[in-house]
Amino acid sequence: MLLSGGLDSYTAAAVAARDGCALYALSLRYGQRHVRELEAARRVAAALGVARHLELELDLSRIGGSALTTTMAVPKDRAIDPHEIPVTYVPARNTIFLSIALGWAEVVGASDIYIGVNALDYSGYPDCRPEFIRAFEALARLATRAGVEGRALTVHTPLIDLSKADIIRLGVSLGLDYGLTHSCYDPAEDGRACGHCDSCQLRATGFAEAGLPDPLVSP
Amino acid sequence: MLLSGGLDSYTAAAVAARDGCALYALSLRYGQRHVRELEAARRVAAALGVARHLELELDLSRIGGSALTTTMAVPKDRAIDPHEIPVTYVPARNTIFLSIALGWAEVVGASDIYIGVNALDYSGYPDCRPEFIRAFEALARLATRAGVEGRALTVHTPLIDLSKADIIRLGVSLGLDYGLTHSCYDPAEDGRACGHCDSCQLRATGFAEAGLPDPLVSP
Repeated sequence: MLLSGGLDSYTAAAVAARDGCALYALSLRYGQRHVRELEAARRVAAALGVARHLELELDLSRIGGSALTTTMAVPKDRAIDPHEIPVTYVPARNTIFLSIALGWAEVVGASDIYIGVNALDYSGYPDCRPEFIRAFEALARLATRAGVEGRALTVHTPLIDLSKADIIRLGVSLGLDYGLTHSCYDPAEDGRACGHCDSCQLRATGFAEAGLPDPLVSP
Repeated sequence: MLLSGGLDSYTAAAVAARDGCALYALSLRYGQRHVRELEAARRVAAALGVARHLELELDLSRIGGSALTTTMAVPKDRAIDPHEIPVTYVPARNTIFLSIALGWAEVVGASDIYIGVNALDYSGYPDCRPEFIRAFEALARLATRAGVEGRALTVHTPLIDLSKADIIRLGVSLGLDYGLTHSCYDPAEDGRACGHCDSCQLRATGFAEAGLPDPLVSP
C-alpha cells in the first residue's frame, strides 16, 4: 500500500488490514514541500502495525512542474473544480509510485496494492480516476514476471467513490485516530496546517459534513 | 529517452537524433551492481550532444529481488532462453523508468519517449515486449495532464525487432562509437567486462554476426 501520511491513505490502509492483508507500506520522499507528511506516515504505519514500512527517496523536484515540488505558490482558498487540473498536480506521480509499489509487490509476493485515491472530493488529478487504475492493472499484467506467470495484481481503491465525509466516517468506524495524519500542502515551519490549500479545504469540509471535529484543529 | 550507457540505449538515442528530436536523456542510479554504466551514459550523452542529461537516484536495492541489485550471483555462460525470465530481471524496472520519463516528458513538453528495448536478442524480460510498450502508452494517455488535454505520448522502440547484429550495423551506419558504452552486468573492479553474463554474451554474438570488432575488446 502507498502511505503518504494523509487521511486518505491511512483509511485505505486500514481497509486493507480489515480485509485481512499483512501490510507493507511504501512512502516516498519525493522532494515534496510538505515532507513533514512522512513523519505522519511513520506514526500511521506504527498505529496500523505494518509488517514493514519502506521509505524510498526519488527527488522529483529535479523534474519540477508542480507547486508541490518547486517554489511555485500553492493556491489558497480557490474554488476547487475537479474538471481543471491545478498546479499542485505532480506530473506522473501516481504512475511512478504505483510502479515502485508494483516492483515491491512482486518481490514480497503480494497480489494486492491499496491506494487511497478518490475521484469525488478531489483536486481533479488525472491519476486518481478509475480508468487510470484499470489501465495500470492492465500494464502490470504485462510488465512483471508475476503477470507473465498468470498471477494477476489487483489495485484496490476503496475510497474512490466516497465523499471526504464518508471516508472520515469509515475511518472513525475502523477506530482510526486522524490526529496522527498530516494533510496540508503548505504547512508552517512548526508543522501547523495552512487551512487554505486544496487539501486543507477538502479535509475541513469533510469533517464538517461528517459532523465530527478534526483532531488536528484546536477547538 | 532512457539512457543506460549500454549499446542499445545509445543506438535508440541516435535514432531519435536522426529523427530530428532534441534529446533529453534520463539515467537512473538504481543500486545496480554495474553502476559504472552511468559513466558510459555521461560519455554517450556528451557524444550525442544532448540538450540535457538528468541523472536521478532511486535505490531499488532496498526492494531487491534481482541479481543486478543484490549480492545474488549473476549467471555466467548460460544458454539464453527468451522464454524464461532470469534472475537479472529487476522487478518493474522499465515500468518505473518509463513512468519517471513520462513525468519529465510532461514537464519539458515532449510527446515522444525513446527506449532501447529489444525483444529478439534479449534476456526474456517481460517489460521489453511490444505489448508492454503499447499498454504503457495507453496508461500515459490517462495518467497525465497532457493526455487529458489530448496530447498523446508515443513510446518509440526503434530496436524492438532488430537482432543485436542489426542494432550494431545501424549504430555504425549512424557513426556511433561503441567504445564509449558499457554492457557488462558484472564488471571487474577496473571496469573490465566479465565476458560471460547474458549482456556480454549478447554483445559478443552481435559483433561477431555483424562481422565487426567490438572496440571494448582488445584484439
